[in-house]
Amino acid sequence: MNAEIIAVGSEMLTPSRMDTNSLWLTAQLNDLGIEVVAKAVVGDDRARLAGMIRDALNRAELLLISGGLGPTEDDLTREAVADALGLTLEFRQEALDAIAERFARMNRRMAENNRRQAFILCGAEMLSNPRGTAPGQWLLHGTRALALLPGPPHELKGMYRDHLLGRLRRMAPPLAIRTRQYRITGMGESDVDQLIAPVYKQYANPVTTVLAKPGDVQVHLRARCGDAAEAEALVSELGEKVKALLGDRVYSEDGESLEAAVGRALAARGESLAVAESCTGGMLGERITSVPGSSEYFRGGFLVYSEQMKTGLLGISPELIAEKGVVSEEVAIAMAAAARERTGSTHALSITGYAGPGGGAASAPAGTVCIGYSGPGGETSRRIHFTGDRARVRSLATQSALDLLRRRLTLAVR
Amino acid sequence: MNAEIIAVGSEMLTPSRMDTNSLWLTAQLNDLGIEVVAKAVVGDDRARLAGMIRDALNRAELLLISGGLGPTEDDLTREAVADALGLTLEFRQEALDAIAERFARMNRRMAENNRRQAFILCGAEMLSNPRGTAPGQWLLHGTRALALLPGPPHELKGMYRDHLLGRLRRMAPPLAIRTRQYRITGMGESDVDQLIAPVYKQYANPVTTVLAKPGDVQVHLRARCGDAAEAEALVSELGEKVKALLGDRVYSEDGESLEAAVGRALAARGESLAVAESCTGGMLGERITSVPGSSEYFRGGFLVYSEQMKTGLLGISPELIAEKGVVSEEVAIAMAAAARERTGSTHALSITGYAGPGGGAASAPAGTVCIGYSGPGGETSRRIHFTGDRARVRSLATQSALDLLRRRLTLAVR
Repeated sequence: MNAEIIAVGSEMLTPSRMDTNSLWLTAQLNDLGIEVVAKAVVGDDRARLAGMIRDALNRAELLLISGGLGPTEDDLTREAVADALGLTLEFRQEALDAIAERFARMNRRMAENNRRQAFILCGAEMLSNPRGTAPGQWLLHGTRALALLPGPPHELKGMYRDHLLGRLRRMAPPLAIRTRQYRITGMGESDVDQLIAPVYKQYANPVTTVLAKPGDVQVHLRARCGDAAEAEALVSELGEKVKALLGDRVYSEDGESLEAAVGRALAARGESLAVAESCTGGMLGERITSVPGSSEYFRGGFLVYSEQMKTGLLGISPELIAEKGVVSEEVAIAMAAAARERTGSTHALSITGYAGPGGGAASAPAGTVCIGYSGPGGETSRRIHFTGDRARVRSLATQSALDLLRRRLTLAVR
Repeated sequence: MNAEIIAVGSEMLTPSRMDTNSLWLTAQLNDLGIEVVAKAVVGDDRARLAGMIRDALNRAELLLISGGLGPTEDDLTREAVADALGLTLEFRQEALDAIAERFARMNRRMAENNRRQAFILCGAEMLSNPRGTAPGQWLLHGTRALALLPGPPHELKGMYRDHLLGRLRRMAPPLAIRTRQYRITGMGESDVDQLIAPVYKQYANPVTTVLAKPGDVQVHLRARCGDAAEAEALVSELGEKVKALLGDRVYSEDGESLEAAVGRALAARGESLAVAESCTGGMLGERITSVPGSSEYFRGGFLVYSEQMKTGLLGISPELIAEKGVVSEEVAIAMAAAARERTGSTHALSITGYAGPGGGAASAPAGTVCIGYSGPGGETSRRIHFTGDRARVRSLATQSALDLLRRRLTLAVR
């Protein structure tokens, strides 16, 4: 079974807005084994919308239309579908009653134009909308099925769950989905893909998707079968092969973030962590504390953006900075050791670097970052040169620091 | 003149990918006064793509198609356009030479299937692509114009600038664009809209767009006229009215971020800043230091996630915490004063709160945040209860802290 999705609204044709409902709907439809073969965005133009609806129904078995069900003159989805299919709209008292009841409950006066929302396509079922005023519509038309859904995401999602999920499940063949979501750091997207493509390309099912952010690659496997055990066996078979190739670069098998994986390892050992940050200015602490419950293992730390703060707050010797440079592995280790000692934490991480675009030194150009670690097993450091803009350098620096700690905690290696 | 955009590629019909080329192209076309009236995404399916191209050319004067110009069997845009228009494809030696030259330059062997990329629609102009292998195509067909562009964003953008911008500018009437980009904090999106809509709705030109992130609203004005002075007069006239209504909630008139606006004010006064963060764990420092050149005014600070850190690193009295609660305006002020004193900064900001989802106290449920300030003019604080999840509470807390400082610096008020 295949589907198309049309999002209605001129605001989604501007450079700063996009239709995100279709992404959520696609995930839901895929879960039922329904493939999305095309999608479109169209403005509030009755003739153009009617034309696009007609074209889509020539191609797809199922058409979902979001938006354009409001009370104003700009809301034209009802009329456009009627035009496209040669149907009339009929007034339904039950629809108006539900809208009026909602206004009464909120102690607001219903405007005259809300009456427009009570017009339903001849032959369509009305889909109630407890989250907003616009009722949805469901229509079987020849060999095609058609749903009209409200545009606001929480109304659309609620209506899909309440009314469409069951209807579509009965129409689509039964299907079980099993997934794996590996996350990898320390390797680029194309290197990951080159390494694992020879294996995953042998499988049409599971489907493999490789996604990347700076310093972080995700490999999604998604097996779909009529039988749940078979789907699990498929995803597990390919998953083990992929994992074996990626080795200890895999930090998560269920999509967990790196900061959450590190936090879980710390909590399991009953150990604590502190940080000392220069060029990242708090980004490392921010990431660690983005995880709910991080107070169990995160103590705190120091933002030492200037040299005076490094000497004043952390007691780093000015001679060491003068001799080795403020961006050096020696200073990074001294920062980590001081943060650990001053907070009484089990482990401490530090970052010192030139994030750019300006700054840097002859020995350490912009993009150079040193990561320091201090813990019960001793001290270690890394010196890395990142390319890219300031935001990217800072993000990669925190990723490297967290990965260094992950490896200490879970692999007992540098 | 109106346009449609079709993005080709099955990967953009998955829940995790989207077509972003069309946003960039829309901004470019709008700059020329060309309106985008619909856009679509379609998979690598020759018949469906051909059908959608035919449908789009029935509606729009200009059609831009991105993607599907690669060398593999999946790349079907050339063939689909030929099908849709009833044209043949012809081999162009100049296209193959350019592709071969690129491979030679990179010391790589050209594969046999790259030959497919040298087929150009009969009557079309080839658009050279120094950034990749796929040449683009430009075709005038009856009253319609059609461009085939490569999918990778940097190739598409380069080709647009090199080849399309000039052609489209000659086709579209001359147009000058002038914009304002106000940023507002301390007021919700719907409140902003309700306040300014009665004014901006009187103007069809400039077009007004209201965008929002948590704690931050943007109002974009965009005037388009044949004459530049007239466009400037229009955007300035509406801009002054909007600004007068929004008052001191406007922190930027050119889209500058709040952290950059605060940084500029500090740098102008030659003053410095420090922070002490509890529940935000570094997010405030991260935001401040995301601005290039922030070392000019940002000294550093303290991440005091636990009570022991607040007493140990900042010397907050345990009695004060016991008496007032760790999330209290008194503790926030003590944190700011200690951070200021220990770093020798002109100003200091502090944040202490319960970000949730768990935690909180009877007197301060999850979502409660206290902001503290200490500076030459004295000390002040705010206590706020934010709704929403952990990420939202933390983000709103840093926004409030920065706005408190902005008001001290630029308005000389609390």
